[in-house]
Amino acid sequence: MYQVPRGTRDFTPEEMNIRRYIEEKMRQTFTSYGYGEVQTPIFETLELFTAKSGESIKDELYDFTDKSGRKLALRPELTAPVIRLYIEKLQMQPKPLKLYYFGNCFRYDRPQKGRYREFQQAGCELIGANTPEAYAELIALSYNLIKNVGLKNITLQIGNLTIIDTIFKMLNLTDNDKKELLPLIDKTKYTEIFDYLSSISIPSDTIEQFITLLQTSDITKIQEFIANHDSAVQELSQLQQILHLLHHSFHIENLQINMSIVRGLDYYKGIVFEISAPVLGAEKQICGGGVYDLIPLFGGRDTSTSGFAIGFDRTILALEAEGFSFPTFPTDVYIIPYNNEMNQKSIEIAQHLRQNNIITEIDLLNRGIGKALKHANSKNCTTALIIGPSELEKESVTLRDMKTGEQHLIKITDILSNIQKQ
Amino acid sequence: MYQVPRGTRDFTPEEMNIRRYIEEKMRQTFTSYGYGEVQTPIFETLELFTAKSGESIKDELYDFTDKSGRKLALRPELTAPVIRLYIEKLQMQPKPLKLYYFGNCFRYDRPQKGRYREFQQAGCELIGANTPEAYAELIALSYNLIKNVGLKNITLQIGNLTIIDTIFKMLNLTDNDKKELLPLIDKTKYTEIFDYLSSISIPSDTIEQFITLLQTSDITKIQEFIANHDSAVQELSQLQQILHLLHHSFHIENLQINMSIVRGLDYYKGIVFEISAPVLGAEKQICGGGVYDLIPLFGGRDTSTSGFAIGFDRTILALEAEGFSFPTFPTDVYIIPYNNEMNQKSIEIAQHLRQNNIITEIDLLNRGIGKALKHANSKNCTTALIIGPSELEKESVTLRDMKTGEQHLIKITDILSNIQKQ
Repeated sequence: MYQVPRGTRDFTPEEMNIRRYIEEKMRQTFTSYGYGEVQTPIFETLELFTAKSGESIKDELYDFTDKSGRKLALRPELTAPVIRLYIEKLQMQPKPLKLYYFGNCFRYDRPQKGRYREFQQAGCELIGANTPEAYAELIALSYNLIKNVGLKNITLQIGNLTIIDTIFKMLNLTDNDKKELLPLIDKTKYTEIFDYLSSISIPSDTIEQFITLLQTSDITKIQEFIANHDSAVQELSQLQQILHLLHHSFHIENLQINMSIVRGLDYYKGIVFEISAPVLGAEKQICGGGVYDLIPLFGGRDTSTSGFAIGFDRTILALEAEGFSFPTFPTDVYIIPYNNEMNQKSIEIAQHLRQNNIITEIDLLNRGIGKALKHANSKNCTTALIIGPSELEKESVTLRDMKTGEQHLIKITDILSNIQKQ
Repeated sequence: MYQVPRGTRDFTPEEMNIRRYIEEKMRQTFTSYGYGEVQTPIFETLELFTAKSGESIKDELYDFTDKSGRKLALRPELTAPVIRLYIEKLQMQPKPLKLYYFGNCFRYDRPQKGRYREFQQAGCELIGANTPEAYAELIALSYNLIKNVGLKNITLQIGNLTIIDTIFKMLNLTDNDKKELLPLIDKTKYTEIFDYLSSISIPSDTIEQFITLLQTSDITKIQEFIANHDSAVQELSQLQQILHLLHHSFHIENLQINMSIVRGLDYYKGIVFEISAPVLGAEKQICGGGVYDLIPLFGGRDTSTSGFAIGFDRTILALEAEGFSFPTFPTDVYIIPYNNEMNQKSIEIAQHLRQNNIITEIDLLNRGIGKALKHANSKNCTTALIIGPSELEKESVTLRDMKTGEQHLIKITDILSNIQKQ
């Protein structure tokens, strides 16, 4: 017997109902903000991803060589492919350009709860806009995408990498120091941060002040630290404007500054943000994004870019953990021909209902009324129509309410209106 | 500059609108027949595909070895993965089980018009039903899926592999003979068929009768040929019942018997069918399917299976060739704040409209009314709202009809109803 490959999944009709429901809700939200959907291939040239993330990304990639010797890789994320698409096809479009996507991504990683080797992401890129209004709208979009699918309890945290980088410069840290520190900051390992900075002779009170800054959501504490470092002061002022817009125009409540948000990726700069669903515990992050710089690296004309990606699977896990009840779509009508001679009329009735978007099945196995009703019941059908010769003489059929078991005779011409009423 | 890998494609927002429109129409049709959607991984174990199609399939596959030495392949089609999923997860479900899918598939093939290395298929599998009514409904579903997306001129042709196989036995053909002949029959190369059968000493009049059978849509000519070969007579009688149902119950007109439909794949048996769009010329086939036998091969409990797959790209090419006009979704409302101080109110109005599914953009670049109107125009927006201080004093905004250029003042509370009216 063959099995699904390790770390990947099949989705049954019940699971697909949930996934398509969420996709549709997100599509509505993206569309309402004026975003247009794009799609890129499942694989790209390997170089696209190593150019963006360095050679070490290969350890996590499904990379392979095609029959002509091309080095390819299944995409691990969608920002690099979408920016490649932008440079190839869309550079001449009026700005700002707003692109969104749904797509499966692949990482060769140890599978665990909420982490798969094939996983779906929803996300977007905003190209050619760098005002506080633009960034506030982008962040509000990510928040509302998740709210609109029905998740109740989420928190939004915003940081700024330019400010962190200014502090690194103030402390005279080397590139190697940064490489050591960023993962510690990302994982809020304050003891290790303290130890590392001590080991390179940073004074204790400076370290403590820095760690306070990483932990605080009080903007004045950050202001004190960066005092008169121009680029950081400017970024902080923009951050304040964004926070103001998010609070007072977009009316987002669960919002905090968090300077320890550094994202794993070193192409981010300036604003970064994350959305978490606390109900998920340790693996609670469901969205991450920020301002980044990728177009020049890929050979395009430099312009401001920002974006975010939402993990589809964790969003579903969070909705389930909150007890969200997803809509179901059982068969509306199950048609049972009394015998073979009733097939023609039964099919005609079925086709008429289907054309009116009523989910309709006919008993295809000629198994008799008893067994067919049992099958209709097992599929949670709401209505059964029994098509028999004596009813047909009266141009009627028997309609059975599958919940109450009540049956009555109705005219064939009245079937549609009877069913739409239910 | 990085490029899209050879034989694969990016889709822009305009192209995605078309693809999602077709997907949505097809989804509605599948659903109305009581089919449920499934999804399987992009890659499977290589063995799944070689078990189904033989070792030679490897020449067309994107196959690779993962970091743990697993032999995997990007799926070239979806029937094998869906049947694997059925055996792993759904064997206990009540029958008949109706599963549909949308999915990208991959073939390492020479790219040409309408043929790509990554391509999308829509299709379904019907498991546990083998009556003429079941097969007629399956075929009608494929026909109506294509009709319902808007394609006008299509033809449906139905053949039967059991009948062809009976004739092969009557002619005492070896397995090798069949292997030589099937591709010739599939490509209707009658001269080559004649030459081949002559070379193995089949009498000329028998060959001519066989070729007539391959060309005819007259069922009596087929009856004469197979005369008293039981299994073929039974299949022909079932074929007649299916044709009758398709004609008289499903009201399908463009329908023909065509015994030269053999499909490329040797796991088919019995009924096979194809739908073509003549507007496409040589590469006109957009759907193929039939009855097949795969479950026992994959280690499941034997049950009747049938299904079909529709090529998404050729369906779009055919619609375009017929001049079908796809719906477009331009931005409904473009909001222009007169100055920065208008941003808060502008955002609030935008959010209100978006919550009501009105596609709304705000000028995010503070570029002034003239330039912003030009941008709104380039995006084919239907309405612009100008938010200025003197208007706000009257709790109003200026609404501009982007087609006529007419402007008038409306109350903020009346914006939604004004826009929904348009």
